Amino acid sequence: MVKTDVFKGRDFISELEYTREEIETILEVAFRLKEDYAMRRPHRLLEGKNMFLIFYNRSLRTRNSFEAGFAQLGGHANYLDADKVYTPAIKGMEKAYTTERVADVARVLSRYGDGIAIRIYGKPTGWVYGRGNEYIREFARWASIPVINMEDDMYHPCQALADIMTMKEKLGDLKGKKIVVSWAYSPSVEKPVAVPQSAMAISSFFGMDIVLAHPEGFELDPMVIEKVKENQRKFGGTFEVVHDMKKAFRDADVVYPKCWGVLRHIPPQAPQADWDAIGKLFDANKHWICDEETLKLAKPDVLYMHCLPADRGFEVTDEVIDGPNSVVFDEAENRLHAQKAVMALIMQ
Amino acid sequence: MVKTDVFKGRDFISELEYTREEIETILEVAFRLKEDYAMRRPHRLLEGKNMFLIFYNRSLRTRNSFEAGFAQLGGHANYLDADKVYTPAIKGMEKAYTTERVADVARVLSRYGDGIAIRIYGKPTGWVYGRGNEYIREFARWASIPVINMEDDMYHPCQALADIMTMKEKLGDLKGKKIVVSWAYSPSVEKPVAVPQSAMAISSFFGMDIVLAHPEGFELDPMVIEKVKENQRKFGGTFEVVHDMKKAFRDADVVYPKCWGVLRHIPPQAPQADWDAIGKLFDANKHWICDEETLKLAKPDVLYMHCLPADRGFEVTDEVIDGPNSVVFDEAENRLHAQKAVMALIMQ
Amino acid sequence: MVKTDVFKGRDFISELEYTREEIETILEVAFRLKEDYAMRRPHRLLEGKNMFLIFYNRSLRTRNSFEAGFAQLGGHANYLDADKVYTPAIKGMEKAYTTERVADVARVLSRYGDGIAIRIYGKPTGWVYGRGNEYIREFARWASIPVINMEDDMYHPCQALADIMTMKEKLGDLKGKKIVVSWAYSPSVEKPVAVPQSAMAISSFFGMDIVLAHPEGFELDPMVIEKVKENQRKFGGTFEVVHDMKKAFRDADVVYPKCWGVLRHIPPQAPQADWDAIGKLFDANKHWICDEETLKLAKPDVLYMHCLPADRGFEVTDEVIDGPNSVVFDEAENRLHAQKAVMALIMQ
Repeated sequence: MVKTDVFKGRDFISELEYTREEIETILEVAFRLKEDYAMRRPHRLLEGKNMFLIFYNRSLRTRNSFEAGFAQLGGHANYLDADKVYTPAIKGMEKAYTTERVADVARVLSRYGDGIAIRIYGKPTGWVYGRGNEYIREFARWASIPVINMEDDMYHPCQALADIMTMKEKLGDLKGKKIVVSWAYSPSVEKPVAVPQSAMAISSFFGMDIVLAHPEGFELDPMVIEKVKENQRKFGGTFEVVHDMKKAFRDADVVYPKCWGVLRHIPPQAPQADWDAIGKLFDANKHWICDEETLKLAKPDVLYMHCLPADRGFEVTDEVIDGPNSVVFDEAENRLHAQKAVMALIMQ
Repeated sequence: MVKTDVFKGRDFISELEYTREEIETILEVAFRLKEDYAMRRPHRLLEGKNMFLIFYNRSLRTRNSFEAGFAQLGGHANYLDADKVYTPAIKGMEKAYTTERVADVARVLSRYGDGIAIRIYGKPTGWVYGRGNEYIREFARWASIPVINMEDDMYHPCQALADIMTMKEKLGDLKGKKIVVSWAYSPSVEKPVAVPQSAMAISSFFGMDIVLAHPEGFELDPMVIEKVKENQRKFGGTFEVVHDMKKAFRDADVVYPKCWGVLRHIPPQAPQADWDAIGKLFDANKHWICDEETLKLAKPDVLYMHCLPADRGFEVTDEVIDGPNSVVFDEAENRLHAQKAVMALIMQ
Repeated sequence: MVKTDVFKGRDFISELEYTREEIETILEVAFRLKEDYAMRRPHRLLEGKNMFLIFYNRSLRTRNSFEAGFAQLGGHANYLDADKVYTPAIKGMEKAYTTERVADVARVLSRYGDGIAIRIYGKPTGWVYGRGNEYIREFARWASIPVINMEDDMYHPCQALADIMTMKEKLGDLKGKKIVVSWAYSPSVEKPVAVPQSAMAISSFFGMDIVLAHPEGFELDPMVIEKVKENQRKFGGTFEVVHDMKKAFRDADVVYPKCWGVLRHIPPQAPQADWDAIGKLFDANKHWICDEETLKLAKPDVLYMHCLPADRGFEVTDEVIDGPNSVVFDEAENRLHAQKAVMALIMQ
């Protein structure tokens, strides 16, 4: 375990800003809190503290695991629909008496409690890739209390912690294990890329062999891929991109097939979101579904992972997600424990 | 009191699935918790627990009594607007990235806390009678924690408990007491039938003489009526249907006049909701109002009951609902105590 | 400190209904609770209590400081969007199955907890000046638990307490200090007048010299001004109205420039809201902005105050609100402590 004072007061915006040692410490704490929860042993480590959960987007797992988890730690979280407060906006996106500058919101909330967590991607960012992350960093710049990323348009670090916890529980040492982060089709084109990017990022700390699979046109952020490779140079593991789900799945220990959006047709890569072009790319790839036949190409005990909600019948068949290889509910549960660990460490 | 281990982990979806002995135990606990509350004696029986309140419909009493009551028991309830999570949907009513299958929602929430409560009827069910109940049973099927019905399109069992508590407080032994469950007019035709059905159901456990009064066309679910009669064969009491509010009220100990909808003009009885036909039935029966003149036909100390909100000036006059026979606020208060009893018993 | 039993069970609707001695006691308690908070010394004075926060309008500071503050006191507050309950309505503004009479809502909630707080002004009142206050008084009339005004269309007494706390912290004795409550331009014309009215009202208890500055047409409620003058006859201080921000600012100790609406063009002064006329008045006064040049006319250490959210670039320049004279975040923080003091005193 690292020295304990590296956490207090820190933000948790991207897993890539933490060291491997720090991530391992978070996971150790998470596993310990999971045991406490299993026994319902009180663990009110943040008694009397308050935090603010700001949602620009829908949420089931994130909202409930944060709100319930913080209560289990003895605190109280205010659930804030961004449209029911004066919607926090960065300079240039303000509207009188409807929005309030992020700088002001962050400074005010810092006076009332002990942490701020934010979810923002897609429509509320005007579909400008990176602006969600910019919002969260703007919060962090002005807040004097820790800021947590509950999914922006680049990263979903809490999901990443839950993912790696689940893999460790099922597979033990992850060194040399093969994970396939794959695109899958959904009729909804309005999808962020945070989950696959964070899944790769977290895997790159643990020596895993990463295969990124997607149809042409669904490329992820090259900067994230560069950081993944940089980690792999330190911690081991290989990285490969393939354009065929079936080919990618061969001998996989973990598959993570999931729909994501098209960066090349939204700003800043495109002058504006081109939904026609995006729709065509989606329509051309309806066969990217994780069904039993495809799953059989992987190892027999392969883990099927998904952050949920899954678009059943499109991304994945019922047989797979409800089948013996699926660990999606264990994965969802680990959100609770991972986030409690982060909160307990940084919000002291 | 029954053996205490019959409650732990159980769902509370319809009062008809509990035995009379079990219902009496819930009421005893409710009265005891009411005393505790009156003295503000701490009764934190569910310290550190979490539950999830999912609302597809508006609510004042239910939401506030559940949320405050659970806090009084030491727990924390997440209030969830169904449209702010990925709206839980049963198979066939799903929409990519907007809904999430009930099976998945139930399994995820089971990992984060200790109970799920749901309100669903009317529009969110597509006005298919029974589908609200089906939603709740689907939650219960998949959840590994207790599921509570906060009103579906068939039953409102928490209201029923509050109703029977209130009658017991005011009338003592209910054997042979006459209750009139009556339709009343409201300008809003979008009304569920859960309250009158549950009022009859709960009364049938206690030997009451039940009179169901409504204009022709407002028949309630024959299956529920059959169960009411079945209970009466065991526990005593009579059952009668009349089509005249005034006639029904004669010598009543309790009257419960309240608007409800038209089952014969919505599915499955009709191919689709026929709002014209429903509107006509409503318009033809505007004289079904509980006013002082009508109330005088009952016993002098008759209890006027209503689950609230009441459509004042339509269902009931101000003189009656604010008059000496009205017990509506005691009835509303008992929601708190009855629900706390249910939670304390099943969520241990 | 006044005798302590004057607070228990009382409503807090307007600061003008409290005596100076009582207000001073609230402030003493607020400063003490602020110290507790600074040290994170537990102060769970309302352990196990519940309150209901009803919002007809957006809120950031109010909602979060009440919800977090009440949790810090050991209680649990239900956040209620007025549109998600049966919207409480006064007689004459009811709509079947959508609204519920305030009298009924107040009586029901009184059975479930220990306090009700309400925010209502502008659109939900049909833009009839005074109707928001009427709503809150109607709640208070029927509730058997304390009612708190979280801003209506006449008063924002919690803001007033925070304002006076902040002035006392920065200036010490307020006797003879000059405060300028000034109108400022915003592109949003839908603004209440509660903040300037309450700022003048609270200042009038402490012997301050009050200058009210606004363009012609933006007159405030003469009844409030009369009460301000009445207080000043008792406690000292002068009152003056000027129609020039620059002239008003001269030698000011405190400036409070802020947009507000036009009472003469909404009911009851006008037969109906005349948004054209209001718009013209606003457009004609775009130069009413608090910039550095204007601020320099005041004393060098003048306090710049604002209740937030500020319409930056219109009401005030970034240089001023983010500059050395600005105390807006200290002011926002004091909302927390002032409200906790009120709650702790009246909700015992």
